[in-house]
Amino acid sequence: MRKKFLKRALPIAVVSSILIGGMVGEISNPSVQAVEIAEKDPEIKNVIFLIGDGMGTSYTSAYRYFKDDPSTPYVERTEFDKYLVGQQMTYPDDPKQTITDSAAAATAMSAGIKTYNNAIAVDKDKKRVKTVLEAAKEAGKSTGLVATSELAHATPAAFGAHNESRKNMDAIADDYYNEMINGEHTVDVLLGGGKTNFVRSDIDLTKSFQKDGYSYVTNTSELRADDNEQVLGLFADGGLDKMIDRRETTPSLEEMTQAAIDRLSKNENGFFMMVEGSQIDWAGHANDVVGAMSEMEDFEKAFKAAIDFAKEDKHTLVVATADHSTGGFSIGADGASNWLVDTVASVKRTPAFIADQILKSGKVEESLKLYIDQELFPLTDDEVKSVENAEKNSEDIEIAIKKVIDKRSYTGWTTGGHTGEDVPVYAYGPSSENFAGLLDNTDHAKLIFDIIEGKN
Amino acid sequence: MRKKFLKRALPIAVVSSILIGGMVGEISNPSVQAVEIAEKDPEIKNVIFLIGDGMGTSYTSAYRYFKDDPSTPYVERTEFDKYLVGQQMTYPDDPKQTITDSAAAATAMSAGIKTYNNAIAVDKDKKRVKTVLEAAKEAGKSTGLVATSELAHATPAAFGAHNESRKNMDAIADDYYNEMINGEHTVDVLLGGGKTNFVRSDIDLTKSFQKDGYSYVTNTSELRADDNEQVLGLFADGGLDKMIDRRETTPSLEEMTQAAIDRLSKNENGFFMMVEGSQIDWAGHANDVVGAMSEMEDFEKAFKAAIDFAKEDKHTLVVATADHSTGGFSIGADGASNWLVDTVASVKRTPAFIADQILKSGKVEESLKLYIDQELFPLTDDEVKSVENAEKNSEDIEIAIKKVIDKRSYTGWTTGGHTGEDVPVYAYGPSSENFAGLLDNTDHAKLIFDIIEGKN
Repeated sequence: MRKKFLKRALPIAVVSSILIGGMVGEISNPSVQAVEIAEKDPEIKNVIFLIGDGMGTSYTSAYRYFKDDPSTPYVERTEFDKYLVGQQMTYPDDPKQTITDSAAAATAMSAGIKTYNNAIAVDKDKKRVKTVLEAAKEAGKSTGLVATSELAHATPAAFGAHNESRKNMDAIADDYYNEMINGEHTVDVLLGGGKTNFVRSDIDLTKSFQKDGYSYVTNTSELRADDNEQVLGLFADGGLDKMIDRRETTPSLEEMTQAAIDRLSKNENGFFMMVEGSQIDWAGHANDVVGAMSEMEDFEKAFKAAIDFAKEDKHTLVVATADHSTGGFSIGADGASNWLVDTVASVKRTPAFIADQILKSGKVEESLKLYIDQELFPLTDDEVKSVENAEKNSEDIEIAIKKVIDKRSYTGWTTGGHTGEDVPVYAYGPSSENFAGLLDNTDHAKLIFDIIEGKN
Repeated sequence: MRKKFLKRALPIAVVSSILIGGMVGEISNPSVQAVEIAEKDPEIKNVIFLIGDGMGTSYTSAYRYFKDDPSTPYVERTEFDKYLVGQQMTYPDDPKQTITDSAAAATAMSAGIKTYNNAIAVDKDKKRVKTVLEAAKEAGKSTGLVATSELAHATPAAFGAHNESRKNMDAIADDYYNEMINGEHTVDVLLGGGKTNFVRSDIDLTKSFQKDGYSYVTNTSELRADDNEQVLGLFADGGLDKMIDRRETTPSLEEMTQAAIDRLSKNENGFFMMVEGSQIDWAGHANDVVGAMSEMEDFEKAFKAAIDFAKEDKHTLVVATADHSTGGFSIGADGASNWLVDTVASVKRTPAFIADQILKSGKVEESLKLYIDQELFPLTDDEVKSVENAEKNSEDIEIAIKKVIDKRSYTGWTTGGHTGEDVPVYAYGPSSENFAGLLDNTDHAKLIFDIIEGKN
């Protein structure tokens, strides 16, 4: 947080130089910068589309304050902040629900159509609809899907598979293998979680993919040792651990994103890749502010890897957005004019992780004080007691821990479900100016189809 | 809500024509349109700055769904939607609070500095800082303040007055009268509420203003009958009634905005005006979704009046934004994937108004069914009973009514205070492209100072 502020005279001078000289400084418009690059070099070879699942404006704003350097007089901008171009509407076309789920939203962004909740790249008549990833493959580009959820989870699924319901995750994994475009599997690089959808009693899809030339990797060192252009990486049975709970054997979203870029960028025709920060949403459903900030950081680093590549490459469009927001998360609660980031930052593992440790060890106070920095967030006896009094199961202990954190930090939640407000859109690179203003979620696919199909 | 959706082929064609032909269609970027106008005719004479107090993204999104025409296959865009250019950060520089109040936020937007909560155009040392309205007056422009709150309330005050605390509302009213620039009162057109700050036992400022040539009007017909270029309009003792509770004698925010434009635009040097939709925030503090939608509509119509003038005039910059969000309002709550606009729209008066009627008449069920459309929102016996069981005072009856509406509509709230997430920014006219991307709230003043002082 800022301890002092610049005098008015100076900022005006800065503004003037921006307006007159066309310089791009801190307060200027990143989309102007993007336009300049677009005009200089308009050919788009690659599109990296990143989805922060559940990442509404409360999350992107909270993360900025969470990451702020308290020694400077202003709040530092996040990587996202530099590329904000607008917002998007997220509503589905569902007969019974007005707030979208991840499946309908991902289908809107992958295929450019409004559909019902649960739909995986199928329309309201349950007919398969072409996705931008498939269009890229048809155009001779390489393709990738990277996620911290199961690879067969709704968001990645709606780019590389088709199903009438997101719940059919084994069938979605089958579809990744079975769907062929120009004699090749649709997705060249698949990195994420969800081994159980691929390795099953009826079939082992990892063997099928390997038979067809894919590498198969299951931990960080195997991923690093591999350099095959087609790779299936499954780093957990279900979703990956959250970043702050993760061990070194599990790659970060940044590392998976970089590994995918390294492979896909070898194709001279370019590539399309979708990267999902899947568990911002899961933390939102769990009303877990610590997990939410962890997953925001994981996603921000992946976004920066994409941006860094695009800056070097100059033929890459990067778009990042969310499918919806989750949890009714608010910065501030209970009438307070404060959101205390130190309190949130002092918790070194997710409440779910701490709850598991408490259940294993039976030691409530010791575990709490091991994982919550007692200088920044000295726990009161009442707070410790509230966790001791929870039912002796992982869920109730977790809820008790979250209550302590929320109350102290003034974090608010209204639901375990999704919320319907517009979500931010970030874009960089050639054509990024077309993503500015207020978009509908279907506009992403429409614009990307045009980029991919217009060039080929 | 949309009952069907366009096939993918058509939207792509539309996108193509936009990209190729440069047409501006529904899915295109409104800021591109603004840039074009700016390049064609860059001279800015007038700035209309509109603040939707408390109008975070949940409010602007909810209002779109609230106003949606159910007979069309998509959700109609609001007036705001067409001009979205980005978001702004709202944090103050307060020793004790991390979430801004309206005073610090308005000072940031009027003077370009971060200051403490409660500060009215003074810095952290309580020294007066120049506002964009004062700079406009110095430059020979006309000036105006329009609000649905008291005119001496924090937001308008921080543009046309100075005080170490927003609470000193009588002193703020004095300052409107006492501060002179080039031999004239600082603000030419003052329209809003808060008569009690002007007409007091120690002084009657309305007489002082009239002595100096101002008209003084107190209702719609007096405002319409007047055509003096300097006018003080006080239409309520405190804040104006909310739009849906308002009688014809009280002008709408649109009518006040139009009346101000009509007067201010007579000055060949141009004008600066701040228009506040003050009570979006008040509805947020009260966790009153019905009042919030009412005040969004009042503000949208005022925004449209400003836009319509700017389109005709071609030398007017219009910027609309919020100072912060309020209430932790969420579209969806309690795990539901629905926000039921029909339920909200079926309530024809604010819960506060209905509660007063109940208290006056003693008739709970009759009053509820008079003001809540029983076709759209048939009240259950339990719902009626929950209001009957409330303590017999206006506040408790109001709370009971709001609970019924929130539960049925799946509206969520986390606080009676403000929240810290970024808020949307809308801009139209020459120089509007400079407001795109992520701004700090102080950037508005910096950019507007440059426009006003750079031209004179």
